[in-house]
Amino acid sequence: ISSKLPAVGTTIFTVMTKMAADFNATNLGQGFPDFDPDPKLTDLVTQAMKTGHNQYPYMPGDQLLRSNIAKKVKTLYGHQYDENTEITVTSGATEALMAAILAVVNAGDEVIVLEPSYDSYVPAIRLAGGTPVFVPLVAPGDEQSSYSVDWDRVGEAITPKTRLMILNFPHNPTGITLGASDLDALETIVADTKVLLIADEVYEHIVFDEKPFLSLSSRPALAARTFHISSFGKTYHTTGWKIGYCCAPVEMTAELRKVHQFMVFTVSSPMQVALGIYSEDPSTYLTLPAFYQEKHDFLYEGLKQTRFKPIRSQGTFFLLADYSEISQENELAFAKWLTQEKKVTLIPVSAFYRNPDDVESNHNLVRFCFAKKQGTLEQALSVLKHL
Amino acid sequence: ISSKLPAVGTTIFTVMTKMAADFNATNLGQGFPDFDPDPKLTDLVTQAMKTGHNQYPYMPGDQLLRSNIAKKVKTLYGHQYDENTEITVTSGATEALMAAILAVVNAGDEVIVLEPSYDSYVPAIRLAGGTPVFVPLVAPGDEQSSYSVDWDRVGEAITPKTRLMILNFPHNPTGITLGASDLDALETIVADTKVLLIADEVYEHIVFDEKPFLSLSSRPALAARTFHISSFGKTYHTTGWKIGYCCAPVEMTAELRKVHQFMVFTVSSPMQVALGIYSEDPSTYLTLPAFYQEKHDFLYEGLKQTRFKPIRSQGTFFLLADYSEISQENELAFAKWLTQEKKVTLIPVSAFYRNPDDVESNHNLVRFCFAKKQGTLEQALSVLKHL
Ligand SMILES: CSCCC(=O)C(=O)O
Ligand SMILES: CSCCC(=O)C(=O)O
Repeated sequence: ISSKLPAVGTTIFTVMTKMAADFNATNLGQGFPDFDPDPKLTDLVTQAMKTGHNQYPYMPGDQLLRSNIAKKVKTLYGHQYDENTEITVTSGATEALMAAILAVVNAGDEVIVLEPSYDSYVPAIRLAGGTPVFVPLVAPGDEQSSYSVDWDRVGEAITPKTRLMILNFPHNPTGITLGASDLDALETIVADTKVLLIADEVYEHIVFDEKPFLSLSSRPALAARTFHISSFGKTYHTTGWKIGYCCAPVEMTAELRKVHQFMVFTVSSPMQVALGIYSEDPSTYLTLPAFYQEKHDFLYEGLKQTRFKPIRSQGTFFLLADYSEISQENELAFAKWLTQEKKVTLIPVSAFYRNPDDVESNHNLVRFCFAKKQGTLEQALSVLKHL
Repeated sequence: ISSKLPAVGTTIFTVMTKMAADFNATNLGQGFPDFDPDPKLTDLVTQAMKTGHNQYPYMPGDQLLRSNIAKKVKTLYGHQYDENTEITVTSGATEALMAAILAVVNAGDEVIVLEPSYDSYVPAIRLAGGTPVFVPLVAPGDEQSSYSVDWDRVGEAITPKTRLMILNFPHNPTGITLGASDLDALETIVADTKVLLIADEVYEHIVFDEKPFLSLSSRPALAARTFHISSFGKTYHTTGWKIGYCCAPVEMTAELRKVHQFMVFTVSSPMQVALGIYSEDPSTYLTLPAFYQEKHDFLYEGLKQTRFKPIRSQGTFFLLADYSEISQENELAFAKWLTQEKKVTLIPVSAFYRNPDDVESNHNLVRFCFAKKQGTLEQALSVLKHL
């Protein structure tokens, strides 16, 4: 049968995690914590299952959970979403992304995607019949600076066919975030257009160096055209529970829900009930920056003792490092070699480009996930310092 | 913003369940058990959460769970699916349906759908850019016979543009199943075509009168072109957990997984692990026919004491009943009246037709869900006998 997604193989995250398992390697590849959620949270799931929350929940999501999402977004970003008509609980951020894209992208529409970018965007755009338009981030220079956004190039990419722009900050894989001037630029660029935005902000609570996170929803003019997407998997160390959410203005939410209700209908009832109760306490997410800063700094400092050249991350589970002093192989080859021969698994940054094999996609950069136990990070560093 | 699914409103199941809650009515509408799963199963979820199964599972699904699905299908229907390349665990049957449809239906393709039919098929076809082609089931005659399939009409609906046919037996809402001669007819019809099939068999274990269920996968010629879809929600009284699966030949599974991995990526880890262990014991599903036969018969006999004329169901959670002795209102109006005035909630069968308001869609039939506690069924009957 002819494929609708001929360019799609198995996602790099599954490929590398399987390879890590096969070679018994320390897995700093796929973005997931190797530690457990708060036992309070798992106990709440048990309690929910024992108190009858095992059948279809309300399609848009658990009431208390949506209400807590609304409160949090209002408190942190100042934007008031209506919990009944503007907030939908989804099967992870992945489903929110797919549903939003399928809901608004028509055949022939253009969708602006920054490159490098997360690997689910383009297949979703293709399934909707849309065309991805890539705008490269400016790659890091010699001084170990990080990637940055060239807003002029973003603005130039907008055409009358542009339906949607996908923005993902804190950015996977580069770990960069946006500042106030970035949001200013974005506001200006879209002001006279009908372009909608997706803000994939799954790492909103995992930001460093005591800078508050600037959500797109913190700007009313942006919030009015944005699908604001986040993930409880990243926030509560439960990536395998597959619960996320999408906040968006009422007309956009109405379209999203039409797709959502026939894509998954609704999301795990006991887990939603548990997350509803658990998220009442803001300390459950406000403590995250400090928690992850320590891991980030430990890995960053550790890598400085190796021949990798690490780049500080501003947010996410990830930091990038240049390996050009160790090898000149392309990124995928280096990542495979490291797994097979040195038993440490990383993600080649080239996997976030449309043509992973091209020279332009290979900057001798690999992505490290530091959402790991101290012992796991130490184990990896003990190997890497001998490279 | 202009809608890609202008015809879609909130699904009837959500509408009626919300109305039942608002009017404090006994809910025999939406198809979900009002009793809990086996505590052994919920304990297994707790155990999985406590033993580290909270992060992304393997994308196609838990190994043991896929292996048990393969064994079950082989034992019951004689078809051997490869658990590694032909079985995918999905976010309920709903996600399997959406992913299968998006994976193989191209813009302009035709998809044959029986009518009445479940309400997620048509929006999924539309999102893929396909055109639904409706073939009516033959409506029940005077003698309280049930609906039936006219295979000649199905055959006539096939054109060179037909990509897919969606078959759902045991059938929601009518409760009919297929016999050997139906499968013969289907084999003949598709033999010289490239038409693919979806077998939505979520009620495979809920069949009555000691007739074994005939899955499309029991015929090798059909299995070779079928997405075989089922649901642990229906089988294990956990509709709110959202876990189902799809078995299909390797090339079809490859395309399905390309969509699945970017639609939800994967499905709740602790629940998959629990279901894997729980489904080792075939009695967990082999006991279902007797369990539900009792409920079916109780409701059927009870309704015979009322002015409803019930029709025996061959499978599913549902039976239909004619209410024409009680009212001549259209089905939706009758269902709403019954909820508001009599505090019993049913589903109008017209909701399973593309034009719910048309005379052709209104046969004075309502759908009863009997997946309910004895007390719930008694409560409803105590009201209905006074109508
Ligand atoms: C859905 S698996 C990928 C996890 C992740 O977000 C990443 O590793 O970038
Ligand atoms: C997804 S809600 C609908 C449940 C169901 O299958 C039905 O009531 O027919």
